[in-house]
Amino acid sequence: MSDYNAPVADILFTMKAIAGLDALTALPGYADATADTVQAILEEAGKFAGEVLAPLNSVGDREGCKIENGVVRTPTGSKEAYRGFAEAGWNAVAFDPDYGGQGMPWVLTSALQEIWNSANMAFSLCPLLTQGAIEALQLHGTPEQKSTYLAKMISGQWTGTMNLTEPQAGSDLGAIRTRAEPTGEDGVYRVKGQKIFITYGEHDLTENIVHFVLARLPDAPAGSKGISLFIVPKFLPDADGTPGQRNDLRVVSLEHKLGIHASPTCVMAYGDNEGAIGYRVGEPHRGLEYMFTMMNNARLAVGIQGLSIAERAYQHAVAYARERVQGAAVDGATDKSKGGAPILHHPDVRRNLLTMRALTEGMRGLVLYCAGALDRAKRHPDKAERARNQALTDLLIPIVKAWCTDQGVRVASIGVQVYGGVGFIEETGAAQYFRDSRIAPIYEGTNGIQAMDLVGRKLLRDQGQAMQGLIAEISGSLGALEDKAALSAALQQLQQATAALLKTGQSDLPAALAVATPYLGLCGTVIAGWLLARAAAEARNQSGLAPDFVSAKQATAAFFSSNILVEAESEAARVTKGGPSTLAFPLDAF
Amino acid sequence: MSDYNAPVADILFTMKAIAGLDALTALPGYADATADTVQAILEEAGKFAGEVLAPLNSVGDREGCKIENGVVRTPTGSKEAYRGFAEAGWNAVAFDPDYGGQGMPWVLTSALQEIWNSANMAFSLCPLLTQGAIEALQLHGTPEQKSTYLAKMISGQWTGTMNLTEPQAGSDLGAIRTRAEPTGEDGVYRVKGQKIFITYGEHDLTENIVHFVLARLPDAPAGSKGISLFIVPKFLPDADGTPGQRNDLRVVSLEHKLGIHASPTCVMAYGDNEGAIGYRVGEPHRGLEYMFTMMNNARLAVGIQGLSIAERAYQHAVAYARERVQGAAVDGATDKSKGGAPILHHPDVRRNLLTMRALTEGMRGLVLYCAGALDRAKRHPDKAERARNQALTDLLIPIVKAWCTDQGVRVASIGVQVYGGVGFIEETGAAQYFRDSRIAPIYEGTNGIQAMDLVGRKLLRDQGQAMQGLIAEISGSLGALEDKAALSAALQQLQQATAALLKTGQSDLPAALAVATPYLGLCGTVIAGWLLARAAAEARNQSGLAPDFVSAKQATAAFFSSNILVEAESEAARVTKGGPSTLAFPLDAF
Repeated sequence: MSDYNAPVADILFTMKAIAGLDALTALPGYADATADTVQAILEEAGKFAGEVLAPLNSVGDREGCKIENGVVRTPTGSKEAYRGFAEAGWNAVAFDPDYGGQGMPWVLTSALQEIWNSANMAFSLCPLLTQGAIEALQLHGTPEQKSTYLAKMISGQWTGTMNLTEPQAGSDLGAIRTRAEPTGEDGVYRVKGQKIFITYGEHDLTENIVHFVLARLPDAPAGSKGISLFIVPKFLPDADGTPGQRNDLRVVSLEHKLGIHASPTCVMAYGDNEGAIGYRVGEPHRGLEYMFTMMNNARLAVGIQGLSIAERAYQHAVAYARERVQGAAVDGATDKSKGGAPILHHPDVRRNLLTMRALTEGMRGLVLYCAGALDRAKRHPDKAERARNQALTDLLIPIVKAWCTDQGVRVASIGVQVYGGVGFIEETGAAQYFRDSRIAPIYEGTNGIQAMDLVGRKLLRDQGQAMQGLIAEISGSLGALEDKAALSAALQQLQQATAALLKTGQSDLPAALAVATPYLGLCGTVIAGWLLARAAAEARNQSGLAPDFVSAKQATAAFFSSNILVEAESEAARVTKGGPSTLAFPLDAF
Repeated sequence: MSDYNAPVADILFTMKAIAGLDALTALPGYADATADTVQAILEEAGKFAGEVLAPLNSVGDREGCKIENGVVRTPTGSKEAYRGFAEAGWNAVAFDPDYGGQGMPWVLTSALQEIWNSANMAFSLCPLLTQGAIEALQLHGTPEQKSTYLAKMISGQWTGTMNLTEPQAGSDLGAIRTRAEPTGEDGVYRVKGQKIFITYGEHDLTENIVHFVLARLPDAPAGSKGISLFIVPKFLPDADGTPGQRNDLRVVSLEHKLGIHASPTCVMAYGDNEGAIGYRVGEPHRGLEYMFTMMNNARLAVGIQGLSIAERAYQHAVAYARERVQGAAVDGATDKSKGGAPILHHPDVRRNLLTMRALTEGMRGLVLYCAGALDRAKRHPDKAERARNQALTDLLIPIVKAWCTDQGVRVASIGVQVYGGVGFIEETGAAQYFRDSRIAPIYEGTNGIQAMDLVGRKLLRDQGQAMQGLIAEISGSLGALEDKAALSAALQQLQQATAALLKTGQSDLPAALAVATPYLGLCGTVIAGWLLARAAAEARNQSGLAPDFVSAKQATAAFFSSNILVEAESEAARVTKGGPSTLAFPLDAF
């Protein structure tokens, strides 16, 4: 039995209507990603997620991870689930066919990530971190490094980790102190230092773990331009590629966290003794730059976690609202013999559920729209189109990451509320979604960092060009949409706020950064509202959709327009008026 | 050492400026509540809270409660803290001097409740539930019942509990099934049934526990008009008042909750054997009515918990933001030798902290304004003033309860965000505030129930009279305020939304209830914004305030005006436009 059913119909519809799946299939290398194939893959994934991963979600939360003799024991069922996941090839979907990957577009990987994270977010972090390591290696590794590690990581035989954070170096990675001393052998170093917050830094799922570690060479310049990237495997591969000598690294402790208990968050020590052997990836001092090349995919993936938790919490809340009988319904549906009506009949409960649903579908639109742009940026035959889509991706990524993760927490919190008193009891499950959701606005760059990235790098740097392009696209599409009035009002607010922010940013960067978060919220709300309105229009045109699906899509878009899109006005007011009072407050008075 | 410092200066200022403390002192019976006495009491409370209760907050969270041989063991330190609390007379502040109380105004009790709950919300639930029991007894008990129980509960020698909820009877208490059979002896019954969610239903803090239990007599009419109230003590008092025979009741289990771990939430069984002896309070079948007489104080108290958690989370976040060095500050405050600037210098962190602060001070204003009205409703010599203040109290209570608890969760969540990665680690403490805060929107009537109460009972029933009175009061005070423009725009939105809702409610109750929650949000935001603006104006006029205090108060009000009050527009739009799309969504399509 599963309490999670992958929303394959809506995912597939959104891939077609919003990400333009058919056009993506026509791009070089994506010919296999036909709608039929994609649908079959999503259905298979939904089955695995519902039957294998979802039932382990609460077990993993209750048991958590333990260290025994330097090895991390994952919760009951994790090993078997991981083996099944890897054997089915789920790790390989997006990656290089030369190393066993399936070379599918990122939009499909994004859709699959939604499903995995809905079913079991803590489990899904293991393949997610491995994905980052695979990308780093695909882009920057030597042929030897690739032949040693890539196929094994794509198959899931070995996992990968990303070792960035140190106690004094969180958002500011320029402060990293971990050292890498040359051994004399070309490209081989001894790594010494401590890393924290290392997701799946140690576990019992695979025979080897490939750590990607940021560290400084002895001659490195200070700050962010003096950091290099190293492969530091748990076991050094022998000549035949099997795990050999144990490397000088170990897990020191596990964090006791608010959520995602099944995901071991490790403090890692490198080089307690002679120094851990590390192999440099790419050129010296370019480690942070390499990290940035993976950042878009990683931030998109975390944004997806917001969507995933929201979808799971929504399904869970709807099930309870159908079943829980309490009080008389104002809509006359009360069954006296049962002592009342299911709470689904209460208008306020419906409002809560529709808020969850509309935000979830809005997030799905935003995620897949961004993933589609990402694929076009890589594969479109036209150079200008590639550049346009890259700029669009870069603009959207911080919005997807921050807006979706904030909405994920919001939706999970509403889910607790729909359950009422039992929502506060852990056994019900709603509380776990609420706890798990809370990490996503923090990691992979806090949402405050995302907002600064949006305003500083994505808006001010190109003087609003990419944003104006998106606004023009939205504006140009309004004619084909039904519920124009609210959307065009919101779009106008976005335009005005953008103009005001560009002006502020030219003369007063702190003032611009003080309203970066509301600006990001404004962008997320307007873009998601636009995509839902587009989806409602597309649903009418797409053939083969069930009439109930079409009418529900339209009703959801209407709810978003009159209940969520209205937030644009407050956010816009914050952007244009909220900065001065933020900066005027004396620091001593806090 | 304490990491909580009671904000005595701001509480006292708000009591004077917003609750009109001096005028309250002039009311009959409140002559002792002079500003000097109140200040001394607040300072003493702040000391006890900071030194004794606050340090137990994380211990209690980690240890939780355990059942051993039918007795609940509270966490380390709880017993000693409770003894100190009772011995200092903190239980007695608001109650009848004839039974050992101090007869102070409710506005002081509310201020103290803020302090207790900031220091340790889980602990404070014990006196909070006892307070409800004391009020029930004061109002509805016989002289014998009072002489047996009242002084012991006011002194804290015995605690009280409220037994309302059953598995099938949560928001709908009319569905209660617990039975009370007459024994033949007048007013004495045998109670049989199971109750859930009983806060401090069993514990090791006192020698006896006085349960107040809702149950049905054999001849009771069905529904909410057939429920009676009973005193069911754990130990039946002997003739000399000492705990004697063990009553037939027991704790069955403890809930495993998201937060407030130190507060035992019990499943209670009454009458497993011969039936628990219960003494009827007041007349048969009027139990729910009696509960309603205590409801305003109880709901106010839960609203205060939202404020309390927010204040604690704010203090905690400010301390971290001052100490944590990360990245270069755009305001030029970077200390290169330390590798960066404290994150307090980052504009986005300031925005987060100011949002926490402005909401917290807004809540404090709302809470104390409501508590002042409550005191006037009881004690004002003029009958019309009593009636006006009672109507105002009734109107404000659901707003205080729901708005403050929603903002409490919001502020606690921002607190986690300010901490970044370590905020997700339990040892830091930010996560506990986030978890603890989440119960307050649920218990004592979910916030959805509060919104329905506001719209159904407080707005539609008197056709908006009390609300129009408040709007007129706000409107009349605008002349004396500085930051008029934003406030009068928000007030106009409230007026328009109120008019629209009154119209909708006349013809279509479900449509009105579908927007009850945004209407409540609108009310809370506008009233809190008004009270902060009033406080800023009063601060300029009040003598003896530190100049820094005055300027901080004004800066906080300015931030609220340009960053929080702007939410009024979205909420008003939801009220006027959001209902139809909520009700139009087909139930089968969820």
